[in-house]
Amino acid sequence: MVLEAPARVGAPVDEIDTPALIVDLDRLEGNLARMADFTRPTGIRVRPHAKSHKCVALAKRQIQSGAVGLCAQKVSEAEPFIRAGIEDVLVSNEVVGDRKLAHLVALAAAHPKSRVGICVDDIAQVRALVAAAAEGRAKIDVYVELDVGQKRAGVEEPHEVVALAQAVTASPRLRMRGIQAYFGAAQHRRGVVERRDAIADASVKARRAKEALLAANLSCDVITGGGTGTFPYEIASGVYTEIQPGSYPLMDVDYVKNEVDVAAPRFEQALYLLATVMSRRGARATLDVGLKAQSIDCGMAQPTFPGWRPRSVHDEHAILDREGDDAGPNLALGDKVRLVPGHVDPTVNLHDWFVVVRAERVVEVWPIEARGAFF
Amino acid sequence: MVLEAPARVGAPVDEIDTPALIVDLDRLEGNLARMADFTRPTGIRVRPHAKSHKCVALAKRQIQSGAVGLCAQKVSEAEPFIRAGIEDVLVSNEVVGDRKLAHLVALAAAHPKSRVGICVDDIAQVRALVAAAAEGRAKIDVYVELDVGQKRAGVEEPHEVVALAQAVTASPRLRMRGIQAYFGAAQHRRGVVERRDAIADASVKARRAKEALLAANLSCDVITGGGTGTFPYEIASGVYTEIQPGSYPLMDVDYVKNEVDVAAPRFEQALYLLATVMSRRGARATLDVGLKAQSIDCGMAQPTFPGWRPRSVHDEHAILDREGDDAGPNLALGDKVRLVPGHVDPTVNLHDWFVVVRAERVVEVWPIEARGAFF
Repeated sequence: MVLEAPARVGAPVDEIDTPALIVDLDRLEGNLARMADFTRPTGIRVRPHAKSHKCVALAKRQIQSGAVGLCAQKVSEAEPFIRAGIEDVLVSNEVVGDRKLAHLVALAAAHPKSRVGICVDDIAQVRALVAAAAEGRAKIDVYVELDVGQKRAGVEEPHEVVALAQAVTASPRLRMRGIQAYFGAAQHRRGVVERRDAIADASVKARRAKEALLAANLSCDVITGGGTGTFPYEIASGVYTEIQPGSYPLMDVDYVKNEVDVAAPRFEQALYLLATVMSRRGARATLDVGLKAQSIDCGMAQPTFPGWRPRSVHDEHAILDREGDDAGPNLALGDKVRLVPGHVDPTVNLHDWFVVVRAERVVEVWPIEARGAFF
Repeated sequence: MVLEAPARVGAPVDEIDTPALIVDLDRLEGNLARMADFTRPTGIRVRPHAKSHKCVALAKRQIQSGAVGLCAQKVSEAEPFIRAGIEDVLVSNEVVGDRKLAHLVALAAAHPKSRVGICVDDIAQVRALVAAAAEGRAKIDVYVELDVGQKRAGVEEPHEVVALAQAVTASPRLRMRGIQAYFGAAQHRRGVVERRDAIADASVKARRAKEALLAANLSCDVITGGGTGTFPYEIASGVYTEIQPGSYPLMDVDYVKNEVDVAAPRFEQALYLLATVMSRRGARATLDVGLKAQSIDCGMAQPTFPGWRPRSVHDEHAILDREGDDAGPNLALGDKVRLVPGHVDPTVNLHDWFVVVRAERVVEVWPIEARGAFF
């Protein structure tokens, strides 16, 4: 069941049905321009991560502002972007399971103009990929994942990278592209020095792995990694050839807690939850944005207005309590209010639509095609 | 984008694509039978809550085992059940906003054999409902919501219930049915005495409100409330005429923390997450069930096997750490493993399918029609 869009183009914000995700188009465009302006002089390849927005319309704007392709995190998530004609899509993750591999290969075979890539960290996974690619008659780009500190996936030693690259290179159906060296946890280290040091360390590991590949006469054209919290350091390393930032177009409130690096671009919050006051009594306002419209793994969505504090989030409700008698708006039944989501990626995954707003009017409505695409 | 089902009927469990929700059919049927056996002699109306499963096939099994209708929490969530011919569907929640009310009235008008109801706690909401019902030419059941301790919605005083019921009764398009008196937080109070006392207190409040309605010559045929953690006490009160349990068919692990009431039926966990080991190194196994396949607001999904402990859940991954060298299975890349989700309702909302299993084979595949239906 895909729900009808919560608003029509031209409507004022107050007519948007709720819960809804509101994109501030001026801010989104500002964020895209900031990334383009910062990266263009460096020559780095920008391959934004689509797992944060899952939306073809937004991805096309990223390509228009200079992105070389996209990352997705799952094969089914990659599908709408490949179908939409994005020419280089990397599933920046291990793909394990015959059905998933057959799906990946079928997508690549059906879209010969697109490069389709995945990550590997296990010889058994490479063997399964070789079998699937032979069956489906497609050529797949492969990146060996190097664990540079995340401790989630990837191999740790250069000789392991070499062994996997040899297995990849041995198959005419696979194209050894390089190394994925993404350090997710480093994005949210609070101090500038901590983030910079984490990426300096990751860069050393990536460089050693590349040297081992070249010494073994294996290809390593691309070293890819880097998110919204660290990409200036991957660029500065001289080792990475590509960055994968996902959060910068819409931004995630967690980044506000990071110490500001004055040398990095300053992205602005461009995504909001719109909610309706559905019950109102005394110092309490109950909103229609529960756990099925917001993910609270990084905290509850916060009001954009003063005087109200989130008390709790339930399956279908969020409750705000008034702080002080005269602070902030005197919310009434039916009022529409904006909140900043606690964590963008899993919150976007709960919605079918972005409602794109400029000057308090709906200017576009974008489907979130890859919502729920977890296979 | 609705994803293809993760398995075909007849397949062994190991062929199910992941992440997937697995329903143990023997346990589900046992839970349905336990509820039917316990409630039948009492004469109570059982109106299960569909917000936990969002699935027409499961709802039909509830009706077959004696349920008088269903609750849903949103108009769009109620829609697939009304369309499937369920004859009495209560949106057990305030419905605020013209588009939502028009949708509700249109559903009721298009399905004249079904009763469609909603809750109210504000005179402005009743006025909007009257206008929508007149416009759409349908008759809507109305329940006044009484706050019996949840502090989320509802009025608190009998005279407020009377005032709302008078406004409802004044409209020929509305049918005053009774009182909703649901105490959600009481479901998870740990001690039997705490839960019993909470419902005893709620029952006193509900009885007073009913007496006030009857004294004012207003109808109060139904007093509805009670979830999986407390329904025996609502039944025992003699005040409630209807219970709304949602969790009992699939069960929610939080109920395991409740002190057992030996007089209440014992429901069994019937829902599992199936995941694949997608990366494996040393004492670490990385699974493909991240925040987009499980909700961690009540804790991380727990393995059903010994020797492995969840360390963290990321957007797309869950990481297990081995506890002790020899404990539990020696997980390998590609292994399928089962976990118990931390919180059923928002986890189900992330999936399009229940894969129904008996004797380690897929026996049915049920679409989760109301997944994402938050309008």
